[in-house]
Amino acid sequence: MSEPLIVDCLQHPKPERERYMEWRAGGVGCVHVTLSIWENARETLSVIGRWNRQFAEHSDLIAHAKSADDIEAIAASGRTAVLFGFQNTTAFEDDIDLVEVFHSLGVRIVLLTYNTQNSVAAGCWEDDSLGVTPFFGKNVIKEMNRHGILVDISHTNIKSGWDALEISERPIAITHANPSEYIGFDIELNRRNKPTDLIKAVTEAGGIIGLGMYPKIMKGGSNATMEDFCNMVDWSAERFGIDSIAFGTDFYDGWPVENITWWRAGRWARQSPLKIPSTFSEWPDWFRSPADFPGVLQGLRDKGFTEEDIAKIAGGNWLRLFRESFGPQA
Amino acid sequence: MSEPLIVDCLQHPKPERERYMEWRAGGVGCVHVTLSIWENARETLSVIGRWNRQFAEHSDLIAHAKSADDIEAIAASGRTAVLFGFQNTTAFEDDIDLVEVFHSLGVRIVLLTYNTQNSVAAGCWEDDSLGVTPFFGKNVIKEMNRHGILVDISHTNIKSGWDALEISERPIAITHANPSEYIGFDIELNRRNKPTDLIKAVTEAGGIIGLGMYPKIMKGGSNATMEDFCNMVDWSAERFGIDSIAFGTDFYDGWPVENITWWRAGRWARQSPLKIPSTFSEWPDWFRSPADFPGVLQGLRDKGFTEEDIAKIAGGNWLRLFRESFGPQA
Repeated sequence: MSEPLIVDCLQHPKPERERYMEWRAGGVGCVHVTLSIWENARETLSVIGRWNRQFAEHSDLIAHAKSADDIEAIAASGRTAVLFGFQNTTAFEDDIDLVEVFHSLGVRIVLLTYNTQNSVAAGCWEDDSLGVTPFFGKNVIKEMNRHGILVDISHTNIKSGWDALEISERPIAITHANPSEYIGFDIELNRRNKPTDLIKAVTEAGGIIGLGMYPKIMKGGSNATMEDFCNMVDWSAERFGIDSIAFGTDFYDGWPVENITWWRAGRWARQSPLKIPSTFSEWPDWFRSPADFPGVLQGLRDKGFTEEDIAKIAGGNWLRLFRESFGPQA
Repeated sequence: MSEPLIVDCLQHPKPERERYMEWRAGGVGCVHVTLSIWENARETLSVIGRWNRQFAEHSDLIAHAKSADDIEAIAASGRTAVLFGFQNTTAFEDDIDLVEVFHSLGVRIVLLTYNTQNSVAAGCWEDDSLGVTPFFGKNVIKEMNRHGILVDISHTNIKSGWDALEISERPIAITHANPSEYIGFDIELNRRNKPTDLIKAVTEAGGIIGLGMYPKIMKGGSNATMEDFCNMVDWSAERFGIDSIAFGTDFYDGWPVENITWWRAGRWARQSPLKIPSTFSEWPDWFRSPADFPGVLQGLRDKGFTEEDIAKIAGGNWLRLFRESFGPQA
């Protein structure tokens, strides 16, 4: 029996060989990586340039994927497919034409906003009086629909999630957040986790939630157990269906710790409104890196998931959604 | 008796000699010009470069002013002082540090948003569920306070006006809008005009409203009469006080008509959500250009304003606010 194709629908690693080795060790067939959080268009072009050099220098381990077919072919060659995405719409710079430009460069998944209100939508640090903006926000979603960029609401607030679902003519995704009903809502820890009714609506419309073991969004934080992670998968499968759940670990590594300030405050504040920790979160001992994915699959087997179920959760579901999402709108 | 110093606190002319001649003909001592509506930081630098060349080539008519003292000196030399401003915060590119950078380049007045919701505030095309954004919007206003950039709410929606007033630690301005109670509110014509209670609060806090004869915000549009304009000045003086009203004509000329699409839709839409007219609005026959300012002052005299009143309305009030606003925060 061959291992299933694993798709991790959100990581933000520093692009370097050590990460690709972990991917290989874990049998990870595809990783959706983040090009931009607060980076503008020009800076994002440089990030793409950096990845292009990685593809050239580490072609034994990774290759750039722009489609579900690419992912399958790259994974079949024993390498990891790298899929480009943004965790914000900053790089569009309020220019509707940049949606197509970045699609041409391979960007396939874009989060509408990262924590705060921008010109497109409101983030999970905002209250729900704010949502997707009536002009540019709506235009951007329809333009992403048109060209084939999957709308991601992982870091939006709840209202923006509902707004995006209503505006989008194609399925949308929660690439990396957990169900807050399962985790328990804690404003300091996991504002980005999503309520059950929103996840249900997203998945009923053909979307997927990528469940993750990032300590900040898990019950127990760094002490979360694999059993609890597998219980969350089971809990989610019952509510949202086996075809609608998948992985989005939010794994990152390799950055200097100063990057936390960049991620939290970008350039829009002198200081982060949230306290900046002095170290990165410690990953749980059963998921020190993506090299530990086989153990997670075994945990799901132990929980009673069938091989067919596991193939869907591990990568089949994301591949289905990618196939539906990355081409031009019908 | 010498003519009073005239300050027009908003024009958006194409930078060319014909305009400077009109300013001279009208005895205009200072014009607040627009560098950026949707232009980003880099593009705005080029606009500044363009103005710098104008200052060098037309030094007989214009000079760059960065302070109230500069304005008085330039006007006393028989030339027109050009004051830099933005009609949007696009050029800050969500970078708090660019506030000081643009202040260093002479930018002294910045409108929080132009019609739509951006990452700072909501514009007058949005409903009042939206306002100044809790993170970046608040930070930008405080940073403008700190360095000495006057907050302008001319094109914001009403809620953003109130929010800005509450957040700002220094007086704010409405550089170019009229009282909607006087004009009559018409959603198609003059969304940007402001309600009496907001104008009252802005002016009681030390701010000023710049009244204008731009047809789109006037009763009767292009057929508005000078008498009606002077009646509006009188109506406003009664309610807001003679120290709080001034001029903000919103005069523009010299651009190709295609620029209307740029002003309306920037790059954020393929088409403007509002119908694009095929020609520019026709200015009323008593204000074909700023060369007609002396006639307006005469109209105010005929209406019964004293020379002292007229000196305040024409320029004294703006100069007072500029003197209070353009230096570092106490």
